[in-house]
Amino acid sequence: MPMTELAAASWTDVREHLDSGRTLAVLPFGALEQHGPHLPLSTDTIQAAGVAERIARHYEALLLPAVPYGETWDNGGFPGTISLAASTVTAICRDIGLSAQSSGVTTLVVMNGDYGNRAPVHAAARELSIGGFDTLVLDYPGLAEIGDTVKETAWAAPGLCHADEIETSMVLALEPRLVHPDRFVAAYPELPADFGRRPIRFDTLSPSGVFGDPRPATAAKGEAIIAYVVERSIEEIDGHLAAISA
Amino acid sequence: MPMTELAAASWTDVREHLDSGRTLAVLPFGALEQHGPHLPLSTDTIQAAGVAERIARHYEALLLPAVPYGETWDNGGFPGTISLAASTVTAICRDIGLSAQSSGVTTLVVMNGDYGNRAPVHAAARELSIGGFDTLVLDYPGLAEIGDTVKETAWAAPGLCHADEIETSMVLALEPRLVHPDRFVAAYPELPADFGRRPIRFDTLSPSGVFGDPRPATAAKGEAIIAYVVERSIEEIDGHLAAISA
Amino acid sequence: MPMTELAAASWTDVREHLDSGRTLAVLPFGALEQHGPHLPLSTDTIQAAGVAERIARHYEALLLPAVPYGETWDNGGFPGTISLAASTVTAICRDIGLSAQSSGVTTLVVMNGDYGNRAPVHAAARELSIGGFDTLVLDYPGLAEIGDTVKETAWAAPGLCHADEIETSMVLALEPRLVHPDRFVAAYPELPADFGRRPIRFDTLSPSGVFGDPRPATAAKGEAIIAYVVERSIEEIDGHLAAISA
Amino acid sequence: MPMTELAAASWTDVREHLDSGRTLAVLPFGALEQHGPHLPLSTDTIQAAGVAERIARHYEALLLPAVPYGETWDNGGFPGTISLAASTVTAICRDIGLSAQSSGVTTLVVMNGDYGNRAPVHAAARELSIGGFDTLVLDYPGLAEIGDTVKETAWAAPGLCHADEIETSMVLALEPRLVHPDRFVAAYPELPADFGRRPIRFDTLSPSGVFGDPRPATAAKGEAIIAYVVERSIEEIDGHLAAISA
Amino acid sequence: MPMTELAAASWTDVREHLDSGRTLAVLPFGALEQHGPHLPLSTDTIQAAGVAERIARHYEALLLPAVPYGETWDNGGFPGTISLAASTVTAICRDIGLSAQSSGVTTLVVMNGDYGNRAPVHAAARELSIGGFDTLVLDYPGLAEIGDTVKETAWAAPGLCHADEIETSMVLALEPRLVHPDRFVAAYPELPADFGRRPIRFDTLSPSGVFGDPRPATAAKGEAIIAYVVERSIEEIDGHLAAISA
Amino acid sequence: MPMTELAAASWTDVREHLDSGRTLAVLPFGALEQHGPHLPLSTDTIQAAGVAERIARHYEALLLPAVPYGETWDNGGFPGTISLAASTVTAICRDIGLSAQSSGVTTLVVMNGDYGNRAPVHAAARELSIGGFDTLVLDYPGLAEIGDTVKETAWAAPGLCHADEIETSMVLALEPRLVHPDRFVAAYPELPADFGRRPIRFDTLSPSGVFGDPRPATAAKGEAIIAYVVERSIEEIDGHLAAISA
Repeated sequence: MPMTELAAASWTDVREHLDSGRTLAVLPFGALEQHGPHLPLSTDTIQAAGVAERIARHYEALLLPAVPYGETWDNGGFPGTISLAASTVTAICRDIGLSAQSSGVTTLVVMNGDYGNRAPVHAAARELSIGGFDTLVLDYPGLAEIGDTVKETAWAAPGLCHADEIETSMVLALEPRLVHPDRFVAAYPELPADFGRRPIRFDTLSPSGVFGDPRPATAAKGEAIIAYVVERSIEEIDGHLAAISA
Repeated sequence: MPMTELAAASWTDVREHLDSGRTLAVLPFGALEQHGPHLPLSTDTIQAAGVAERIARHYEALLLPAVPYGETWDNGGFPGTISLAASTVTAICRDIGLSAQSSGVTTLVVMNGDYGNRAPVHAAARELSIGGFDTLVLDYPGLAEIGDTVKETAWAAPGLCHADEIETSMVLALEPRLVHPDRFVAAYPELPADFGRRPIRFDTLSPSGVFGDPRPATAAKGEAIIAYVVERSIEEIDGHLAAISA
Repeated sequence: MPMTELAAASWTDVREHLDSGRTLAVLPFGALEQHGPHLPLSTDTIQAAGVAERIARHYEALLLPAVPYGETWDNGGFPGTISLAASTVTAICRDIGLSAQSSGVTTLVVMNGDYGNRAPVHAAARELSIGGFDTLVLDYPGLAEIGDTVKETAWAAPGLCHADEIETSMVLALEPRLVHPDRFVAAYPELPADFGRRPIRFDTLSPSGVFGDPRPATAAKGEAIIAYVVERSIEEIDGHLAAISA
Repeated sequence: MPMTELAAASWTDVREHLDSGRTLAVLPFGALEQHGPHLPLSTDTIQAAGVAERIARHYEALLLPAVPYGETWDNGGFPGTISLAASTVTAICRDIGLSAQSSGVTTLVVMNGDYGNRAPVHAAARELSIGGFDTLVLDYPGLAEIGDTVKETAWAAPGLCHADEIETSMVLALEPRLVHPDRFVAAYPELPADFGRRPIRFDTLSPSGVFGDPRPATAAKGEAIIAYVVERSIEEIDGHLAAISA
Repeated sequence: MPMTELAAASWTDVREHLDSGRTLAVLPFGALEQHGPHLPLSTDTIQAAGVAERIARHYEALLLPAVPYGETWDNGGFPGTISLAASTVTAICRDIGLSAQSSGVTTLVVMNGDYGNRAPVHAAARELSIGGFDTLVLDYPGLAEIGDTVKETAWAAPGLCHADEIETSMVLALEPRLVHPDRFVAAYPELPADFGRRPIRFDTLSPSGVFGDPRPATAAKGEAIIAYVVERSIEEIDGHLAAISA
Repeated sequence: MPMTELAAASWTDVREHLDSGRTLAVLPFGALEQHGPHLPLSTDTIQAAGVAERIARHYEALLLPAVPYGETWDNGGFPGTISLAASTVTAICRDIGLSAQSSGVTTLVVMNGDYGNRAPVHAAARELSIGGFDTLVLDYPGLAEIGDTVKETAWAAPGLCHADEIETSMVLALEPRLVHPDRFVAAYPELPADFGRRPIRFDTLSPSGVFGDPRPATAAKGEAIIAYVVERSIEEIDGHLAAISA
């Protein structure tokens, strides 16, 4: 039995899916955020949706439409970046969870594609858990490991990749027509000593918006990264389902 | 010069677009809401996005990603419907407007595709106007007129069309692969005397979720409806731009 | 048995009333809003209270004190207009509903006299319904029909009457001493093409605050209007009570 | 020049009043709260409005419509009592202050008639003061002193009078037709040691809702009380106006 | 059996304490607020903690850590004063109460040491009572009486003592090393006629921050004051426990 | 010149301190949270306060009183744990920042001692930065490195130490009288596969509340840990001050 993509399904399709006892749903949470001159503003949404879709296929799950906006105040200095307040991200995730719960979904996996969404999505999961609803939040499990394996270029900083070889490879694998190889530029901005410890706008650090080197990116690398993150996500979800049924 | 679709554009594309002086942006606001057994849950999003895209082309405007969720408590009894709180809809629209304003957008046209979003989106427009940002909210101008012209079947009630000939024709024009003609059923539920004057769940009125008759729907009718709504929207926007520059 | 007006009754009177099994309550929701040079700022409150009182008499219901303030940002440019935030209107209506529910009221009819209150009062009704309390919101049912019948002058726009023949007639019927016929002026402002689709202050449209022509207003016309609106309201309420007991 | 009662005035009357330089406004804040079997639920509103009107006359001020609801959770166990949340009281007072400020009012005197409103109205005054608007909150200055002089019966507790000789006399002076002398009963409930230090419902203390003895109440006593409170209020306001202009 | 001070105890100590059936907890709520040149900013916290500790000893109760910040906008003009919003004070008290309730505490006594905390702490008690949790709020019972007895100097105003003989004596008794006798100055500011009836900053009244005369303060007086307030608090709590178990 | 501890200082001391141009303030943010049978509930507060004090000494800074409560829902199943809502933590930090800013402080360093406070404190820093106030949030920089060096026992999980050798050593160094060596027990709970990715109560994982092995803890190790964290914090702050003045 296939997954059911809610955007394409009718309500009767969803009812049939749930009636079969498959009550897992996957929600990709993206952002509209600058990713350098060569990647689309929807990069985080494309990536989260791509990974979520494969997970949903594996579990024959319900796939919710990707949320195309997220919290990204850090990138607010680049035109075209649209940032939601953290409280808005929490509200979106909580409302979706509440409706999913009332539809009969029993576990919601949020595949989060944007750093700024992390805390607000976890806050929503906390609220939902108080109401007895099970939510698992994933942020590309295994990305650092597979990045270390696949990447030919250095990280801009430990755990920091933005419009670099990794992200560019992932979009080349998922939406190649939206990538502009002719605009590839590397940037290794000097990060202030207090990076990550105070609010800081990224346009003051990297005028291009790039943190890393996109030049060696390929679709094949992107596919390897995605496949590994999906594999690790499935391990996480299996572990989670085992833990909550224990 | 073409429109710029933000989901597909880089931030430098948006900067170039805005630098050319074209500072109008269009935001489709949809919903994930039951539309009978024959139409997808994303019907409102598809319609709002389709109309918005043509408007954006006409004005060579910025086209924002469609918001795929909205306020639709009325349909909450049908599995697969996901409803945001009204306050969440207001927050999303306000946050998008604030970021657009800071990017250099001067007018935001919201093409709203869901009844429940109407009041919360207007509330956001009010808040944005206090901060000096110009927002115009459109709800398919001219839909009733063109519906009267094109439609062969009766309205379920004045101004009420849901999964009927009009909506089905529109989706046939925009996303025909998501329509199931084999599931077409007509439904003319008897509406309670106090319909629209108290909170009411639609599943208690129409078990199929249909209000009207989708059977004579065609893509050609859908195209005629969309073309008229776009034409009337452009009149509205032209009038608005003239009014605010007066 | 008569209605019980809460402002004039003691708590023991209310207990006796409720003990007799008559558990309907009527709440007029008004505003303090400019109505031209010839009508009082309390016009909306007077009208809502007048209609509500007749409804309460018909049903031998509880009549709550009229709320004398409402949401009227549009008229904020005229001195003397006092506008509540939409969220404040929702809070007032919700709090009154919660207390009424705990007193033993089973249905609350809100007779709303101000356009800006409409969405926030419906939002309160939604919240109350989630808590199991029944609220019906009425906005002068039949006003457009009886207006078309009684009126000798044109509407300022379809559905728009403000300090015009209709409203002036109603106040002449209810509180004639507060009307200044010597100040009657007609005004048919040219409305911008985007009227109703963006936030707009009315003082930029009509310097007098009038939208229509009050000159042919009479108390008899006002009485006819009120009688018809009351009759239609009773039909609505009867229909509602039948619907919820079905 | 007379005071201007906003409920009865047109916006042009208010403009004229303000243009004369008299920019003081008075707002009575009442409640709908049980006051024993012999007094109306609107007792607090009647008293606050009566005192406020005399103050407005003295200053040739603007008189705002009385708010007929307040925070009265303590009395929530008596049918007919309608209590607003404290946050709603704050919102009402703040919104009225903001609109008054934008109309050109320079000082708002709130005559508060309900104990539960005290803290939330002061909270609103604080918020308004941060926005540069001057608000003075009065709670019947001198009431205890004049009570000691006029009263023949004992207080139910120091500073506690509810439906007693004082309040009954005041309503006899202001709205005698709403008083039921045939229902006068005295009640001196034993107050728990922790009265005022924890949330407590008054119906558990006094089944009649009376705290004191209404029997010797007269309109003449009520008139003496009101006159004294008005006199002391004027002293307070004069002192305030002198203080803020210093 | 002794009291248990939570800051010093392990969770197993608290479990043992609660298992013995002693389920009363005491929470001192202080402030960081100017108290003249001679007393520490933590004066209110020191006093509330000192009184609370003796009460906790008497009842063999749980003693919660003192909250070292409170609402003190009035003193915001003096450097070093840190003021929480009233809503933050309410949130702190409510959250502590909710956790205490879930730990098995049955009565929470809040010993409040700061005037500005009074209304927000009572608001929290109201919220907690709706959830079935018992909270008693004390503001130094008997302080005025014992002040009249012990004090050699005049009050700055009835009920107003701030950095005066009373407060200085209390800190001399509790934390003598934090008092600077060499900086003692008396100040009897002329209070505006509307003191307490409008928001007012204290630095405009008393440049030193003192309201009264600290010069005759002694530790012995402080001890007498504290002992009396503790004695009266115990009477209050005994009365409360009797009242709620009745 | 020494640091100024606000709890012990008068407002004139703070004024003098600020007038000397030293406008850095340090705020320890703790929690009241179970730390096994052998450590006090205030462990996080003691540690944060201890580290913050040394930093304040180094910079001759203002030292704010430690906040003794934090967000610790995870530990809510252990009696004595008192958890604030995340929004309350944000409010406390924001209010303190706003008052500090108005006192003349230019940089606030928050030394955070509790994992659950991290996201809400960063949220407050974001809000404060929008208002132009500089906040740096530190979470024991270098703790993992020095832990690896000093520790003889294994981590319960990477980055997870709770009531283990590290925390026990720190409290032995700072408040030895509050440690119970006779209660030392090791616990290495098996963590579910989805640990950190869904809301989970720690009492379901470790009945004792310990995650690690406290037995080899010594005050000397604690001193080494604290000294290193202070050294690294000073590097961070120096870097930050350089970055913002660049």
